[in-house]
Amino acid sequence: MAVGLEAPKTLLPVAGVRLSSTAAGIRYQGRDDLVLMAFEAGTRMAGVFTRNAFCAAPVLVAREHLAAGQPRYWLINSGNANAGTGAQGLSDARRSCALVAAQAGLAAEAVLPFSTGVIGEPLAVDAIERALPALYSGLSADGWLAAARAIMTTDTVPKGASREVALSSGTVTLTGIAKGAGMIRPDMATMLAFVATDARIEQAPLQGLLQAAVDGSFNRITVDGDTSTNDACMLAATGASGIGIQDPEDEARFAEALNALMRELAHAIVRDGEGATKFVTIEVGEAADTPEALAVAYTVAHSPLVKTALFASDPNWGRILAAVGRSGLADLDVNAVRIWLDDVQIVRDGGRAPEYREEDGQRVMAREEILVRIELGRGMARERVWTCDLSHDYVRINAEYRT
Amino acid sequence: MAVGLEAPKTLLPVAGVRLSSTAAGIRYQGRDDLVLMAFEAGTRMAGVFTRNAFCAAPVLVAREHLAAGQPRYWLINSGNANAGTGAQGLSDARRSCALVAAQAGLAAEAVLPFSTGVIGEPLAVDAIERALPALYSGLSADGWLAAARAIMTTDTVPKGASREVALSSGTVTLTGIAKGAGMIRPDMATMLAFVATDARIEQAPLQGLLQAAVDGSFNRITVDGDTSTNDACMLAATGASGIGIQDPEDEARFAEALNALMRELAHAIVRDGEGATKFVTIEVGEAADTPEALAVAYTVAHSPLVKTALFASDPNWGRILAAVGRSGLADLDVNAVRIWLDDVQIVRDGGRAPEYREEDGQRVMAREEILVRIELGRGMARERVWTCDLSHDYVRINAEYRT
Repeated sequence: MAVGLEAPKTLLPVAGVRLSSTAAGIRYQGRDDLVLMAFEAGTRMAGVFTRNAFCAAPVLVAREHLAAGQPRYWLINSGNANAGTGAQGLSDARRSCALVAAQAGLAAEAVLPFSTGVIGEPLAVDAIERALPALYSGLSADGWLAAARAIMTTDTVPKGASREVALSSGTVTLTGIAKGAGMIRPDMATMLAFVATDARIEQAPLQGLLQAAVDGSFNRITVDGDTSTNDACMLAATGASGIGIQDPEDEARFAEALNALMRELAHAIVRDGEGATKFVTIEVGEAADTPEALAVAYTVAHSPLVKTALFASDPNWGRILAAVGRSGLADLDVNAVRIWLDDVQIVRDGGRAPEYREEDGQRVMAREEILVRIELGRGMARERVWTCDLSHDYVRINAEYRT
Repeated sequence: MAVGLEAPKTLLPVAGVRLSSTAAGIRYQGRDDLVLMAFEAGTRMAGVFTRNAFCAAPVLVAREHLAAGQPRYWLINSGNANAGTGAQGLSDARRSCALVAAQAGLAAEAVLPFSTGVIGEPLAVDAIERALPALYSGLSADGWLAAARAIMTTDTVPKGASREVALSSGTVTLTGIAKGAGMIRPDMATMLAFVATDARIEQAPLQGLLQAAVDGSFNRITVDGDTSTNDACMLAATGASGIGIQDPEDEARFAEALNALMRELAHAIVRDGEGATKFVTIEVGEAADTPEALAVAYTVAHSPLVKTALFASDPNWGRILAAVGRSGLADLDVNAVRIWLDDVQIVRDGGRAPEYREEDGQRVMAREEILVRIELGRGMARERVWTCDLSHDYVRINAEYRT
């Protein structure tokens, strides 16, 4: 069902990164569910994690190990989130790290754990332990695509992207993979993203680059900074190309490529939204400030009535207007608000645009990709968020996920 | 599909109130869609209206006429919300009032208009005009049940309730009807409620009684005070019983009956929620204050993942826990949080309660009526909100409503 989304055909290897995937049988049968990513010594890492108060055990441990030093491995399992598992979950996450680190003769802090899947079930650490020898022996620079497949849960398409960036002293590579598909309210799905580059970047600027890229991508497909118990987005810079960022122009080029890659991954998650049949951009302009633009955009993007109308290809613009009206803006002058579906103006002067014809709205709504543009007439801020529709299949998928 | 909800068998007449319903053909065919309620001279009225910035034309006019004097009529149509209709909509609402008032030799301000149905279509005032003679001639004290049917849109069951209240100087009657069924996020459905009593109460205390009752009923099935473009809840006191409220004890008795009646109507809306198969109470206790208790309750109540799990009768308590975790509480100590499904404890010490067994959770989730109780361990505030599950039928109903 994914909207305009295909599996990546190739993903570029990143010097200094090796990956391996295997079927550990943690929950799924007959498919890979465990990934190890190994980074050469000297790799710098940055991370952005969920703000959910009930953050999962692996998130707590990953944060802790990232702060403790310079990790060398990421261990990722699908099928079990190791969330809501209390003290036992923490112990399981730590033990997984220790087992992986022991194979390389390192301390547990050298490993960052990530989990996605069902909440509240104990993690099968024994299954992970049994899989480790195969996982180690399979490490390869070409393992990106297999890893993208292994981290999937309700995803229907593996998600990955690569970029080459010409900097002043040479070309560096960026490759990333992501998973996530529960997109009616993205804060409820686990979104994991793992990006690496062979550029040489120190930890502090790396963290800044990652945060900026997340703000323009994964934080534009989520609400109010809400995130699931397990969300994490990681960026590693191995430095293996020997090429650093020399000047502001290099930095701009690198940031632009990173932002575009992360946006592509974020859009892929929306396009693969559970039950999605439409890819919808909500653009809010002429807002007084960014929070206001986002408040309106998210209210529209999360409205089940708007989302079911999108699913039905029904230009029920009244539902869009009602969502704008209840998004909490102080002193909104409804007569200044204009709304378009792609190039078709549907709202002006507090009501339906006089020239609007139902067939024009239907023509736009029949498309797979739709832009809902709302101009508030209050200021200069403009933001975009991305979402999908609400279909029968969303309910089916989420009613049947565990059973 | 309504959960444990039957049409009221009888509704008590209220002295001083006459009602009439007719098929005006505004949108629906072969059913009543227009209601007139007539109140005797001296009736006091109070109203609570939507806070949506795009409030509908009838809401603007009803507010204006209520402020202007002592209205004598409520005119209610279903099938068309007269919302998002700009200047024409205002003009149509005013003209409807003038037409009704003219039949009684009164000014337009004597009539309050209410509309529910599709947004953005022009109101068929001519159809209303043609129906007025029949509407007038049909006015009767026994018209409550027919009116409850005529104001329905996607409702499957008419909603109404009556109470008799013994006050120190005699017994007064309370009868109310309501409509509304779009309940996954109640702020998006039009909820209309019309309540009358033959008690003698002045306008200021009447407004206070209504506001308090709304806060404990319709505002507990809605989020953050969000409301649709058309929501309105009206309370009329005809005084025709000659019985007033003499003392604080009378006032407490009357308020208790009014609150119970409004809660019954609000629950009926949830029980008839679009596609609902479960009636769910979310209780949040040990909160630091009321806003915090409501924030947690609404986050859980609106989570599509929780709602689809309820539909599937799946005790996926991790989704409840994740919703609590992202509800925005500062410094939430997750280890202090406990969660129950009815009498079955599912969460303690930051994870699944050790004694919890899946079959116990399934036993509760199989019920039609479920209490989700969350204790935060932060204070003394406690609130309840009511919601329903998210089913296939919700999507079907809302994808097909206009088409």
